[in-house]
Amino acid sequence: MSLRTADEYRAGLVDGRRLHYQGQPVPDINAVPDLRVAVDHAAIDFDLARDPGHRDLAVAVDPDTGEEYNAGYRIPRSAEDVMARSHLIEAGTAAGGTVVTLIHEIGTDGLFALLRVLEGEGREKAEAYYRHCRDGDLALAVAQTDVKGDRSKPPHQQADPDLYVRVVDRSDEGIVVRGAKCHTTSSANGDEIIVFPTRAMGPDDADYAVSFAVPANTEGLSLYVSGYGGGGHDAFDHPVSSKHKLLETLTVFDDVFVPWERVFLCQEPEKAGALALTFVEYHRFTAVSYKLPLVDAFVGAAAQIAEMNGVMKAGHIRDKLTQLVAYAETVRALTEAAALRSRIGEHGIAYPDPTTTNMAKYTFASGFYKAVEWLQDIAGGLLVTGPSGADWDSPEIRPILEKYYAGASPAPERLAMMNLISDLTARDLGGYHAVLAVHAEGSLEAEKLQMLRSYTANHAPRAIAYARKLAALD
Amino acid sequence: MSLRTADEYRAGLVDGRRLHYQGQPVPDINAVPDLRVAVDHAAIDFDLARDPGHRDLAVAVDPDTGEEYNAGYRIPRSAEDVMARSHLIEAGTAAGGTVVTLIHEIGTDGLFALLRVLEGEGREKAEAYYRHCRDGDLALAVAQTDVKGDRSKPPHQQADPDLYVRVVDRSDEGIVVRGAKCHTTSSANGDEIIVFPTRAMGPDDADYAVSFAVPANTEGLSLYVSGYGGGGHDAFDHPVSSKHKLLETLTVFDDVFVPWERVFLCQEPEKAGALALTFVEYHRFTAVSYKLPLVDAFVGAAAQIAEMNGVMKAGHIRDKLTQLVAYAETVRALTEAAALRSRIGEHGIAYPDPTTTNMAKYTFASGFYKAVEWLQDIAGGLLVTGPSGADWDSPEIRPILEKYYAGASPAPERLAMMNLISDLTARDLGGYHAVLAVHAEGSLEAEKLQMLRSYTANHAPRAIAYARKLAALD
Amino acid sequence: MSLRTADEYRAGLVDGRRLHYQGQPVPDINAVPDLRVAVDHAAIDFDLARDPGHRDLAVAVDPDTGEEYNAGYRIPRSAEDVMARSHLIEAGTAAGGTVVTLIHEIGTDGLFALLRVLEGEGREKAEAYYRHCRDGDLALAVAQTDVKGDRSKPPHQQADPDLYVRVVDRSDEGIVVRGAKCHTTSSANGDEIIVFPTRAMGPDDADYAVSFAVPANTEGLSLYVSGYGGGGHDAFDHPVSSKHKLLETLTVFDDVFVPWERVFLCQEPEKAGALALTFVEYHRFTAVSYKLPLVDAFVGAAAQIAEMNGVMKAGHIRDKLTQLVAYAETVRALTEAAALRSRIGEHGIAYPDPTTTNMAKYTFASGFYKAVEWLQDIAGGLLVTGPSGADWDSPEIRPILEKYYAGASPAPERLAMMNLISDLTARDLGGYHAVLAVHAEGSLEAEKLQMLRSYTANHAPRAIAYARKLAALD
Amino acid sequence: MSLRTADEYRAGLVDGRRLHYQGQPVPDINAVPDLRVAVDHAAIDFDLARDPGHRDLAVAVDPDTGEEYNAGYRIPRSAEDVMARSHLIEAGTAAGGTVVTLIHEIGTDGLFALLRVLEGEGREKAEAYYRHCRDGDLALAVAQTDVKGDRSKPPHQQADPDLYVRVVDRSDEGIVVRGAKCHTTSSANGDEIIVFPTRAMGPDDADYAVSFAVPANTEGLSLYVSGYGGGGHDAFDHPVSSKHKLLETLTVFDDVFVPWERVFLCQEPEKAGALALTFVEYHRFTAVSYKLPLVDAFVGAAAQIAEMNGVMKAGHIRDKLTQLVAYAETVRALTEAAALRSRIGEHGIAYPDPTTTNMAKYTFASGFYKAVEWLQDIAGGLLVTGPSGADWDSPEIRPILEKYYAGASPAPERLAMMNLISDLTARDLGGYHAVLAVHAEGSLEAEKLQMLRSYTANHAPRAIAYARKLAALD
Repeated sequence: MSLRTADEYRAGLVDGRRLHYQGQPVPDINAVPDLRVAVDHAAIDFDLARDPGHRDLAVAVDPDTGEEYNAGYRIPRSAEDVMARSHLIEAGTAAGGTVVTLIHEIGTDGLFALLRVLEGEGREKAEAYYRHCRDGDLALAVAQTDVKGDRSKPPHQQADPDLYVRVVDRSDEGIVVRGAKCHTTSSANGDEIIVFPTRAMGPDDADYAVSFAVPANTEGLSLYVSGYGGGGHDAFDHPVSSKHKLLETLTVFDDVFVPWERVFLCQEPEKAGALALTFVEYHRFTAVSYKLPLVDAFVGAAAQIAEMNGVMKAGHIRDKLTQLVAYAETVRALTEAAALRSRIGEHGIAYPDPTTTNMAKYTFASGFYKAVEWLQDIAGGLLVTGPSGADWDSPEIRPILEKYYAGASPAPERLAMMNLISDLTARDLGGYHAVLAVHAEGSLEAEKLQMLRSYTANHAPRAIAYARKLAALD
Repeated sequence: MSLRTADEYRAGLVDGRRLHYQGQPVPDINAVPDLRVAVDHAAIDFDLARDPGHRDLAVAVDPDTGEEYNAGYRIPRSAEDVMARSHLIEAGTAAGGTVVTLIHEIGTDGLFALLRVLEGEGREKAEAYYRHCRDGDLALAVAQTDVKGDRSKPPHQQADPDLYVRVVDRSDEGIVVRGAKCHTTSSANGDEIIVFPTRAMGPDDADYAVSFAVPANTEGLSLYVSGYGGGGHDAFDHPVSSKHKLLETLTVFDDVFVPWERVFLCQEPEKAGALALTFVEYHRFTAVSYKLPLVDAFVGAAAQIAEMNGVMKAGHIRDKLTQLVAYAETVRALTEAAALRSRIGEHGIAYPDPTTTNMAKYTFASGFYKAVEWLQDIAGGLLVTGPSGADWDSPEIRPILEKYYAGASPAPERLAMMNLISDLTARDLGGYHAVLAVHAEGSLEAEKLQMLRSYTANHAPRAIAYARKLAALD
Repeated sequence: MSLRTADEYRAGLVDGRRLHYQGQPVPDINAVPDLRVAVDHAAIDFDLARDPGHRDLAVAVDPDTGEEYNAGYRIPRSAEDVMARSHLIEAGTAAGGTVVTLIHEIGTDGLFALLRVLEGEGREKAEAYYRHCRDGDLALAVAQTDVKGDRSKPPHQQADPDLYVRVVDRSDEGIVVRGAKCHTTSSANGDEIIVFPTRAMGPDDADYAVSFAVPANTEGLSLYVSGYGGGGHDAFDHPVSSKHKLLETLTVFDDVFVPWERVFLCQEPEKAGALALTFVEYHRFTAVSYKLPLVDAFVGAAAQIAEMNGVMKAGHIRDKLTQLVAYAETVRALTEAAALRSRIGEHGIAYPDPTTTNMAKYTFASGFYKAVEWLQDIAGGLLVTGPSGADWDSPEIRPILEKYYAGASPAPERLAMMNLISDLTARDLGGYHAVLAVHAEGSLEAEKLQMLRSYTANHAPRAIAYARKLAALD
Repeated sequence: MSLRTADEYRAGLVDGRRLHYQGQPVPDINAVPDLRVAVDHAAIDFDLARDPGHRDLAVAVDPDTGEEYNAGYRIPRSAEDVMARSHLIEAGTAAGGTVVTLIHEIGTDGLFALLRVLEGEGREKAEAYYRHCRDGDLALAVAQTDVKGDRSKPPHQQADPDLYVRVVDRSDEGIVVRGAKCHTTSSANGDEIIVFPTRAMGPDDADYAVSFAVPANTEGLSLYVSGYGGGGHDAFDHPVSSKHKLLETLTVFDDVFVPWERVFLCQEPEKAGALALTFVEYHRFTAVSYKLPLVDAFVGAAAQIAEMNGVMKAGHIRDKLTQLVAYAETVRALTEAAALRSRIGEHGIAYPDPTTTNMAKYTFASGFYKAVEWLQDIAGGLLVTGPSGADWDSPEIRPILEKYYAGASPAPERLAMMNLISDLTARDLGGYHAVLAVHAEGSLEAEKLQMLRSYTANHAPRAIAYARKLAALD
């Protein structure tokens, strides 16, 4: 086992992978400024494990060998473990400036799903792979969402059969896969990519029921990084996004060979749904855990800018601030409750309560835009009409700005807080946070579906029995 | 100590109190059908303590003497105690058909506040009074809300000085009070009435800063029971309100003498606010605990009527049901979280976390009407166009109703569930539940005020520090 | 032609119809107090036509003969006619204390639909029937909603084939129908009942595609009046519902014979949908027109009770009042816009713009409960804890009430306004208004469906063309 | 009079004004690419008047002289004029890709206010100035919002007296003003700047009650253009913002001399409120008129992307689309109603109904973020993970993108529509639109305040009288 350094992680990414950005091939991810921001951001995960203030959260110890490994890899066995994982994710994201670092957690969400759902040989391979990743302190990405084509049709009815990743050949050595995944986070700067089916599959879609793992530099695998959110941001007016960033790729498998030891599911459609869903159950809990710094930042920034603008005593400002608090703290309380109500699943692996997890995620997602509105309402129009970093750096202009942008606090403080809010809500990072709220880790509809499903299984009998008793039935 | 029987409780109410209902004096509350419903409803509290299935929740044992007393009187010392109290309130209310029984809990909310806020002699009197009530297993009411007159003015500026209860005389023996409280629940069928100031008082309102307790039959005290919700309901179309009911009174103090041993606060305006607020903190937690059966009934009834109408597969029905689940379960999770996050206050007495309690109450109250809408939407117009109990009892008409009101379930089941929903949401009981949601135990605005206040004191520093760090301030 | 007097109307209802109420047959509707309230309420329509202040709105003149008839029967030929109809409905409902009188309008909504959709012989019969009703100044009911049984199944798949009204026999003289309609408003106190199919029908449901009209006293027709909202209300605490009421019946057709001249549609499933929809288009416009007095009453009562409570200067009160205004006035503006944008349909008959009508209705319905919440929030808990009429009438008790229920206004004014709000929102009438908001004239979902459908047909091309231009497509 | 060409307009901007951008002085606005985008965008106003398809809307004719002038300058005399002005603004904004062009309208909103509110000499000066601007076809900006400092304090109590623009000297020739305005739109690319007080002023703030006009190149006036939204956007992934843009400045008056003929209000605090409010009344109507293309684009893009993704048949997609339609069309209907209900003000100048205008604006603003959420929900996560223009332009990469981003429509169409939605909602332009929704032309609170004020004056008596009648008062 090992705890890699951030520099070991950075160096490991220069491995011959086929990476593309802004229309160009990228031989060294660390050499392209926009991408380097994301690598440095992800490196926080490694730094955290070496930071004395975070070691308790970020480093786990193998009880048998006494060896240390990144706590993101710790398999949860109890509610306490699930809660500790939540705290680790929250701490990493807080260090990441509201942008999740994710480099261990999303992958382990997937590994835990493999370990719970698979049996027999599949599970043995998953265990071996888990040890490989944990012991090498590898950075993981999960590629789940297929490009999907026409969404009204299942995989096998698409005009182009490659619109979901599929098995095109199998031999004694392994399988060959083709197709593309999209929205793949941290693949460009991850060591390994774990592939999951995007949803339940019917018998006609057997070739699409496939799960496996490959290193990022595997032959035939190409990664096309989205240009969204790039562009050399100034630290003055982009205080967060100039330092913190995720990369998403279109992840293309052009007849990629995967040896059997890394194939977890192959042409077994009946297990695709369970695998997809179990991953998502963990992943939504990861999601609500990593949303907590963001909602805290909203509340804190709202309280600060209200003071700085001198409007804290206005009734409507206090009302909006209170509703923002209620929103943020409800997400937090539900996340905590999801951990405290953890259940023990297959093979003794714990998982957060699905009803509560989905409630937390749905509360976050469905209330997000209202929260943005409250925050922007409190802050003011200066969010989109303020000075640039170049203005601020100009010795002629800065005195003007200092004079005229003073509020109840001096201009430097007020503009810094205003720019934070602008970056989080009204620029590319704001758009990214918002679209993530609606779509990442499952849409609002997916959350509702799962909430009703797990409530019906676990809690509805109590409510129904009570209603029937009141109606004098039974 | 004692655990009284329900009949002992009923008999104790015939004590010469000055009770009025529907324009008439009431010598015996048990003899008036509308009022008897409420007495029988409150008696559930006494029955519960004798029910083997509820003894663990409902009966407490004095560790010194080994004597038993009603668990509503147990002074909470830990988060576990607070949680147990919540479960007791929930169980009592569930037995009360969604209508809280309250006969011990509202009073002990008040007693705990007295025990925490008062010091010295005042506290000794409160302790003696607490033992008196607990040992006699007395039914308690709390009279807090004054009639208030013109709300834009403080007590001493009202045209009529009696619009808040006030001290009009004091002597060596005690004090004389005059004025009226309104919305007083369970005073008509309680043994004791504890009076609290309605809010913080300034020096000019010193005469209004008064807290004391009197038996319900005290000389000069008159109780005018509201006529709302009365009227001989049929059990067919009013399955809950025909059996369960609270009584509210206009509670008039016409120069009532109170001996010093029952005076807890007299003309000390600086303590009025703390007393009012501490009571409300407990009482709002009581409130969210007693709302749980109601929100469960909503979810259960919605799920049942959807099945019975044959519409469970419609997308919009499932969507509404899911949102109803999210609402109900968020209230439940926040109530649980408020208990788990309990704090230890003065004199080692525990209390639920105020921020979380107010979040729970606000979530319940602000979402209540949307929940009603979803439930009624799923149920259908039959809620207000259905047959009466007399129709149902007619041997000529019932076959017609059975034929034509069958859905995916037989008519008797469907009509029973429909009538439950109608009673809970579209008749007087529905109006009562709704107005309670908005106003009881503090208005929406009061909840928001308290939420912001306690958040600011306890949690805001974390969020503000984080926002400042992100903005590169500090 | 004629304009009947209210007394002629009342007398006409004693015609041998088979009416049942509270389990009993009712030989004379005017003799049963609960029912008499509804008859007197409906009679407002007849009084209005004789009231000089309303003649312009309420009386129409035949251009050919110069004879007068009730303006509810005027066939709209222009936007102005549609607007005038809206004003007439609003005026009638205002006189009816927020409860629509409807006795001409719902029927003519149906007649206009017949006149627009039918061709040839069917249309001739509809025209003859229209003249019969208009010239006799008859009170009309429309029976559309079937009891429906298991809603997941079409009519012909129901366990009992009678759960939608159907043709069971046909001969040279006419047809025989069997089944039941529910929620039929004003049938108990109407002269004629016009039957519409409840929805589009497929070929297998041909027997259910039937539309006809019968007098209320037709052989085999039985009317079972709902008991909801009955019960001898006191005018003090039920200021509206003690005087204004609608009656709904379960309307049972037990092998009722209908002569061909009154059969408008028989076993022609392909026309059922158009007939159902065209009726609903008119009827939803009637609905939004009759909602205007209700939303006005909400705003007016909120403004009054805020003054009377002395809270008008509180920021949150003003905020809620403003949002109530925005709600009420948006419903009004959309209703006006629906009339102004009227279209000319088949045979030159005008109809309000369907997209806008459905927007108005949806805005009303989806916002209704929030409006109730604001109003109740402003009013206070006294809505459900106030004194009864008997208390008020007691010479001993009234002085107490006058003293203690004074606010910024004297108690009689404040209690009167409080009781109005309680009657409109927190008692049976409140439940009735609320369930009507959600379900009457089509559910929320039906309104959304129709809104999208008519928008797509009429307006979407503009928006789509614009989006494509912006995206540089086309 | 004249109708200038777009090139005449462009040339006129190079006039020696003190313009700054990105920390640098800008001698020629047309030479800086980011700024040039805004100039070209504003030039649409001039092109429109020469476009045969828009002449009817965009060109007015002086009835006395027969000369033509830009119709933005037409003084409204009737509801028809107000409606025509709305259509002109809508057409200009549609041509401007959802970004208002504004170069005539915001200024004339101000001019109409001056013409209505002022009397005597002030009005004569305003008329002369109006003719000067109209006859020269000048581009106008209005500088109203002061930088404001600590908002809890009025102007004269600010630590720095310059935080609201004020008169620092007056002489026979004119006045000298100092201070700064922020959020000034189109000042960098306008010919004239009209200054309005930001709000009502008390006697102590007399020096701040000032209104005047100056050319943009006036001595002592400096314009600091915000850097927000700049940066060389690619037309592929920024289809709108690469071509359309507004400029906002911090507008600094450093002892600027204004001759009396251009001073409309000087040290008359009692008129400041009326002037501020009357301008805002017009300007909010301009606002709702220019929002119509944006809400149309939302609906059209949602309908298109739903088709292109192949999800149009999903119930929840249709539900969101319907609610988006209801939102967009309610804004449109209320805007229309505001025009149709226009009132005739001082000097026969018409103005849109204030209650309805504020309802329209509030409906737009308070619903905006929900609309964004629906649109993004329908579109998908690709909004923030899609390819860049450089990827699209790469001959190696484009085939990959074409293959994998095909939906139910080919990839080029789907990506074009996706990028439109991303630009409008999830990038800088999206943030700009959103913050404008909340803050521009007055905040949500300002709209509510004005709505209640004008409702109370004009409509409340009807509602109050009705409520009192129902309560049997009066």
